[in-house]
Amino acid sequence: MRRATSLLLFLSVVLIASPSAQGPPAWLDPYRENADKLIKAATADRFAWDRVAELTDTYGQRISGSDNLNRAIAWAVETMKKDGLENVHTERVMVPKWVRGAESLEITNPPHHVVPLLGLGGSVATPPAGIEAEVMVVASGDALTRRAAEAKGKIVLFNVPYTNYGETVAYRSGGARMAAQYGAVAALVRAVGPVGLRTPHTGGMNYGDDTVGKIPTAAIPVEDSLRIQRLTNRGIKVRLRLKMEAHFDADVESFNVVGEIRGSEKPEEIVLVGGHFDSWDTGAGASDDGVGCVVTWEAARLMKTLNIRPKRTVRVVLFTNEENGTRGGNGYRDQHANEAANHVMAFESDSGVFAPARLGFSGSDAARRIIAEISTLLTPLGLQDVGTGGGGADIGPIATLGKVPMMAYSGDATKYFTIHHTPADTVDRIEPAEVSKAAAAIAAMIYVVADMPQGLPK
Amino acid sequence: MRRATSLLLFLSVVLIASPSAQGPPAWLDPYRENADKLIKAATADRFAWDRVAELTDTYGQRISGSDNLNRAIAWAVETMKKDGLENVHTERVMVPKWVRGAESLEITNPPHHVVPLLGLGGSVATPPAGIEAEVMVVASGDALTRRAAEAKGKIVLFNVPYTNYGETVAYRSGGARMAAQYGAVAALVRAVGPVGLRTPHTGGMNYGDDTVGKIPTAAIPVEDSLRIQRLTNRGIKVRLRLKMEAHFDADVESFNVVGEIRGSEKPEEIVLVGGHFDSWDTGAGASDDGVGCVVTWEAARLMKTLNIRPKRTVRVVLFTNEENGTRGGNGYRDQHANEAANHVMAFESDSGVFAPARLGFSGSDAARRIIAEISTLLTPLGLQDVGTGGGGADIGPIATLGKVPMMAYSGDATKYFTIHHTPADTVDRIEPAEVSKAAAAIAAMIYVVADMPQGLPK
Repeated sequence: MRRATSLLLFLSVVLIASPSAQGPPAWLDPYRENADKLIKAATADRFAWDRVAELTDTYGQRISGSDNLNRAIAWAVETMKKDGLENVHTERVMVPKWVRGAESLEITNPPHHVVPLLGLGGSVATPPAGIEAEVMVVASGDALTRRAAEAKGKIVLFNVPYTNYGETVAYRSGGARMAAQYGAVAALVRAVGPVGLRTPHTGGMNYGDDTVGKIPTAAIPVEDSLRIQRLTNRGIKVRLRLKMEAHFDADVESFNVVGEIRGSEKPEEIVLVGGHFDSWDTGAGASDDGVGCVVTWEAARLMKTLNIRPKRTVRVVLFTNEENGTRGGNGYRDQHANEAANHVMAFESDSGVFAPARLGFSGSDAARRIIAEISTLLTPLGLQDVGTGGGGADIGPIATLGKVPMMAYSGDATKYFTIHHTPADTVDRIEPAEVSKAAAAIAAMIYVVADMPQGLPK
Repeated sequence: MRRATSLLLFLSVVLIASPSAQGPPAWLDPYRENADKLIKAATADRFAWDRVAELTDTYGQRISGSDNLNRAIAWAVETMKKDGLENVHTERVMVPKWVRGAESLEITNPPHHVVPLLGLGGSVATPPAGIEAEVMVVASGDALTRRAAEAKGKIVLFNVPYTNYGETVAYRSGGARMAAQYGAVAALVRAVGPVGLRTPHTGGMNYGDDTVGKIPTAAIPVEDSLRIQRLTNRGIKVRLRLKMEAHFDADVESFNVVGEIRGSEKPEEIVLVGGHFDSWDTGAGASDDGVGCVVTWEAARLMKTLNIRPKRTVRVVLFTNEENGTRGGNGYRDQHANEAANHVMAFESDSGVFAPARLGFSGSDAARRIIAEISTLLTPLGLQDVGTGGGGADIGPIATLGKVPMMAYSGDATKYFTIHHTPADTVDRIEPAEVSKAAAAIAAMIYVVADMPQGLPK
């Protein structure tokens, strides 16, 4: 290799890796006008926020198997058709139907104090009279292991400080099983999130292979967890009474909602974009994930409105049952296995749109360089640089099968996890401008990926 | 009057009015050492916070007539005695016993959505089957008056933006009566406080002279109030079903708790200091007003610990039934009417201790100048200048009768009203250093007022 060629190669790598420092590459020029149009249209008004509000105000929480979710799905189909999306239809999957029922928690010694709680999704019920037992407070799984002999017959409380979701959620998911193996009769977890206003956070749990028996499990607010810890520290034998009616009914049918902008030249190649339409049964499923559905749906709606039809098909999917089963994402994979390899990219928004936000990408370095180049078109939106962490629970199955590059839109994690899986997940907490910004970024990015001459490298 | 005298008078006024600018006056010198000792002792540890935690962890909410309040009163008597306070005793008053019972609110159209609520203290119940009716949303009392003809048979929702407590609380107190006069069947108010995390705020209401009949009334979170407003704006006839079991049982006995440091020279002259020991039935009554009881009680405890006995009597009173009756404050006035004029000053802490905090004073200008001078001893604590707004619901009756100057300790109002009358009024939200600071300021101030040669001018 000659020195001059080597230098040229070096320079071209630098230019590709740092597009914003050097100005965007020329191949993007034909896309600039439409990308600008999409961004301008998305940010001209609060259409997207209004749609999130309409969805969450009218249908509220949308747990799998609920009438609310069924009604919301019917609305989405109708509304996609009104938007002019193409090939609008539903795709049936069977989903679990977990029902919370009545639930209560009380400190019976010292007498008598109501403790707010949210049973964890998937938990079994207590006997109708409830379970009353002394509490054993531990700050970690290791602490439980060390004091395992004390756990028999107790209600174990995992008073684990929140660090980040990834670390702390292990106690929500697995705490019941950890406690049951030592003979505990129930498991409580300190809410997985920053301190709120006496705010419990629900979420999924699983009993694993269930060799140790199933015990009921619920989340309590940070404040109550600390209170029980302090009482225990003072030498008081704190007793609790837990009542839960939680149970599964038989699986019921649900539906992914699909709408498209069919590609003008390569309609069989698909850019998949979406969020999940179900939610937990507490708040209104606004940030998790009504807003994710709307901002990805907006990509297609805006293209239709502006009469922009890319070469490849843009397919919006509002997935069902992300929260407690991923049956929507798995069902999509199974029903679209024959075209899995035709998916050029899959994009999911399921982390809110709280500022500061950014795009994330997971895929080959070659594809990442192209995504970074395209992101120069988004400069007016003031997002952070494209980072890692593309993907989502719903697009994961098809992406794994088809080796599909993935993207995500991620908002500020602290704001998101403050309201995550709580009654406070409502549209009020979301800024209209941030919804517009997310829709703009996603629309412009999806448009270029769906229209550019070369496919995104796998 | 000669010019020189006039100038001297002018200068002395300036000096008295701005003591911190000119250094503290000499008459305070004998008090400096003890004031410093009190401040050092109060801020050396987190004793006061720990006591608030012990009170609120063990006894929780303490609504008038509850077992919790009765148990907490017994604990306070015992603990004051252990502290070495003198003349520790209770003073009996009869208090109302309002019982919330079960309550629920649901949006039935569009179907079906749970709305968090807190019935307002004093409200009547709905019929057992509840009240189902269309909602009428108004943004003010004037708007209700203009649309009065529409109110008949409706549930009126006062969707009034929170500005400050004083302005907005009128809808909580009087909304039911305002709506009932036009034939409404129930009244809901948007929670009186800054936006929380789907957080309703309870609080007292009254039916006035009850010429229009009593209708049930409750507070709902800001988010739900806005949701119902938006649904209505979209032309949807929103229907609600409200169920409340709220009622009064017969009055029961309760007690003010009294403890003293008897004066060494003028024991019949009294500096009264305290907070209210009851709370609403939602949170743990930490900022409202466990902390106010503890930081005022600390004044006497610290004097005892440091063997500081002022000339006048320092009397700590933990008043009962501030929240829904003021029977404690009225009872104190009635039982101490003969010594009302002997009260040199009355000090109440009932606004939390959230930074930035300050002392407030209500009384004559002459007395205010002395209080401002004494406050120079508190400089190390970094409080804001002494302001207006001395007083409190519990000390008001005796102060009115005896023409007694009043003081208050006031914390940041936004932080206070975020958790005021909500489940989130717990000790977790209070900084230990702020509790110590309040105790230090109150102890030093009370000490000087109780010990200074001249009585505080009335």
